[in-house]
Amino acid sequence: MSPDPHPWAQELGTLYDHAWHRLVRGVHDRHAPARHPTLATVSPDGLPKVRTVVLRAADKPQGRLEIHTNLHSSKIADLMAKPLAALHVWDHGSRLQIRVEAEVEIASGAAVADTWAWVPNRSRTAYGSSHTPGHPIPSALAYDNDPDQSVFAVLHLNIRALDLLHLGAYHRRAQFTRESGWAGLWLVP
Amino acid sequence: MSPDPHPWAQELGTLYDHAWHRLVRGVHDRHAPARHPTLATVSPDGLPKVRTVVLRAADKPQGRLEIHTNLHSSKIADLMAKPLAALHVWDHGSRLQIRVEAEVEIASGAAVADTWAWVPNRSRTAYGSSHTPGHPIPSALAYDNDPDQSVFAVLHLNIRALDLLHLGAYHRRAQFTRESGWAGLWLVP
Repeated sequence: MSPDPHPWAQELGTLYDHAWHRLVRGVHDRHAPARHPTLATVSPDGLPKVRTVVLRAADKPQGRLEIHTNLHSSKIADLMAKPLAALHVWDHGSRLQIRVEAEVEIASGAAVADTWAWVPNRSRTAYGSSHTPGHPIPSALAYDNDPDQSVFAVLHLNIRALDLLHLGAYHRRAQFTRESGWAGLWLVP
Repeated sequence: MSPDPHPWAQELGTLYDHAWHRLVRGVHDRHAPARHPTLATVSPDGLPKVRTVVLRAADKPQGRLEIHTNLHSSKIADLMAKPLAALHVWDHGSRLQIRVEAEVEIASGAAVADTWAWVPNRSRTAYGSSHTPGHPIPSALAYDNDPDQSVFAVLHLNIRALDLLHLGAYHRRAQFTRESGWAGLWLVP
């Protein structure tokens, strides 16, 4: 029998550490799976919404993640109505599904001026002021790209729970909550 | 200037056709991006929930998708309370985000006996009866895998809207709704 390629999945502590290692990797390596999680919210009319986002920061000691967005995007409207989000990563190399449940704080304006200063020009085009993402337009390119710091927003995700599912020779699933000090609990996969 | 690698993204009709081509490919090719979408639901207590699923059928004329699940999984509880789901695919090769908004019908029991007959044995282990997915267990492998058709469920996703985002030299985004006969409308990306 070949050795277990993912021995970290066998214990709660190493499973938790590995998931954070992969989240942090997503921040620093644009080819890592955790670079582009999907973020789910609930719209003001109660519908589930999901879209790809870019992971900008991952702070294990604080249990916090960070995402940037346009203040006019629908996710902001969703989060103003209900400040809770689910974040999802499928890390194929680790055969690991990472699911995050988080309370979200929205920061913008002067509070994010320091962050804005570090946003590269090519990324700033996502923060245009003349149009709202999702707004109908008469032709595909009838929108502008002039960056405007006033529509730049930072989402701080304060993690409440982390649900990890490893698909190995045997599947393993565990949940870690802030409330329990991230102690961890095995669950039926 | 090199030729546009994705000319299909320039017109609403070809963009729509391409997205369906990629969805259908996911059903037949287990390495295709649309094989493993994420499915978002709203829990009975109003929280967003998201997880990886396997796409089992994609019917373009009917605007329908199919997913299999365990009747005891939390997504069933979510969909019983609110039968609406969002499905998400990021197709890296096409630089295309596919987002689906759908009404969901849950089928099980005798109605899905024909479908169950085609489920391979290795997949049937996901439909065990003795435990509920997400239920706490004292150790990682304290669950059983005995297949039980009575917990096998088929989700039929009747698509209401398709939101397509192509990230090319210029970004393009369009929405297609059943209500409009899938005519399509450009949106600000």
